[in-house]
This record gives sequence, structure tokens and C-alpha cells, in this order.
Amino acid sequence: MSLKIPALDPMTLEPRTGSGYPEPYRSRCLPREKRQLGTALGLTKIGINQTILPPGKESSMRHWHTHEEEFIYVLSGEVVLVTDAGEQLLKAGTCAGFPLGTQDGHQLVNRSSQPAVYLEISNRDPKDRAYYSDVDMVFHGVSANPMFTRRDGTGF
Amino acid sequence: MSLKIPALDPMTLEPRTGSGYPEPYRSRCLPREKRQLGTALGLTKIGINQTILPPGKESSMRHWHTHEEEFIYVLSGEVVLVTDAGEQLLKAGTCAGFPLGTQDGHQLVNRSSQPAVYLEISNRDPKDRAYYSDVDMVFHGVSANPMFTRRDGTGF
Repeated sequence: MSLKIPALDPMTLEPRTGSGYPEPYRSRCLPREKRQLGTALGLTKIGINQTILPPGKESSMRHWHTHEEEFIYVLSGEVVLVTDAGEQLLKAGTCAGFPLGTQDGHQLVNRSSQPAVYLEISNRDPKDRAYYSDVDMVFHGVSANPMFTRRDGTGF
Repeated sequence: MSLKIPALDPMTLEPRTGSGYPEPYRSRCLPREKRQLGTALGLTKIGINQTILPPGKESSMRHWHTHEEEFIYVLSGEVVLVTDAGEQLLKAGTCAGFPLGTQDGHQLVNRSSQPAVYLEISNRDPKDRAYYSDVDMVFHGVSANPMFTRRDGTGF
């Protein structure tokens, strides 16, 4: 039987398949499916996505946030977590967390031959910015226009 | 190989096995294991527990929060979600969310013969209170003393 709010089967949601990234970063992440569970459930304080990352793809470029902490939990498959400390293999049932303001960029890379599925969760703060460790890009917030610039403020 | 912060294998954490509930409510929930993933990862904006609920036990008494929204995701096993709308069976891979201030109490009950494992996630707000739908109890916040009273303010 299908579930009704406040319950939800994530796979009944249409996924978000785009990315605000400019090229060539967009193609390093897509195709990728994000189902916005928190929004579908009426939550406003916490953002919750269930993401499917295909083999060979990256969750994001390595980055850290100024005002939003992040948590990820691997549901199936496996991903490689990349941070300043190096690489760690995260299998299903393991997780990682990134306190806000810690200037250690992170990303997940699927180096396996199977899709990886994980939850990504963060508090929501309109003041948030994200800085990218390895590429010349800054994120200015979901309502900013442009959302992404180079570090000197120029657009892509 | 064991994981290092910012990565974590939840099962390496010592679980919290107690409850602030007075009897007879405490015994309806315990034994129950909660592993505090967010705290272990240094997160302060979001609380994240991985909870193991044995057969026959309840996650909590039915309640709703004034300042904290809640999200739960079933990792393995199954639980029955009880709200004003009735009962829904949540299997592994399904979830539920409870916006703050919505006066529809919820709880999870494990009516199966196997342990259920789920993530429970909320924003953190020191102003939070919780009201209980079916029992004469109020939660006044984790730093309050007493943390739980009857609705008329008297202690247990």
C-alpha cells in the first residue's frame, strides 16, 4: 500500500537531475539523481536528499560550508570520501559529518561499478557560502544570482 | 580498516541505553540503543541518532515538538508509525517527517519479531518543548530540571 504524509517512500518522488555548476564541473557530477525528502515532508529547518551517484561520478567538487553542517549516510553501494586527510572507503551503513566553518573540503567519488545511494543532510541557513578546495569557484547561496562565481567574483 | 573522523562506522560507538522518561513509559521503550552520530562527528546544529528498537518496544510516547522538526529513515527491519491519521507500516528504505508545531503526535512501534534500525534526525533548538498526545506528560528541554513533568507542572 502506498504511504501517505507524514510517511513517504522516497522512490515515489521525481528526482532532481540538474546541477547549478558550470562546466566542466557539471559533467563530473551528472547524471545524478537527488530526491528531496525533507521538502516533500514539509520540513524547513533541515534539508534531506536521497542521492543516487552512478559509477565514475562525483557528488560535488571538494568544498566546505560557512554556515551549514553536513551529514552523509551510505545506504547502498560504496563511495570514496576525499578530504585533506586523504581517501576513505565508505561502505553501506557508514557515515561522515562536516562541521560548518572547518576549512577542509570534502567530496564523494563513486569508483565502483555499481550506483551508490546515500542520504545527505544539512541545516538550512540563507547566509551560507561554500568554498571549493581544488577549483576556482565560490557558492553564494541558493537564492543568489549568479549562484556560482569565480573567487574574484566574476561569473562563468 | 577502521574509519577516522570525518568518517564514522556507527557501530563503533557506545550506545546510549537510558531514557529520561518516568515509569511506566520508560519500560515501554527500553531496552533501546541510540548511537549519537551527529555528536560523535562534531555537529551542533543537527541531532542524528541511529536507533535499534527491539520487538515489542516503542520509540517514544506519541508526541509533537514546538521548535524541532523530526525526520526518521528506516534502515532495516520495520516499524509501525502511529499518528492521528492511523497506522502505517514503514519498511526499510522508507521515511517520515514531522514539521515543528504540527499538533499531531507520532511514535514508532516495533510489532515485528526482529529489531528495527532507523535514523532519527532533528534540528536543535533550546526553546523546544514536546507535548504528549496520549499521556499526561510534557518535555521541557534537555537542560531543564525536571526534564519531564505532568501537564499541570508537577513532577513525577
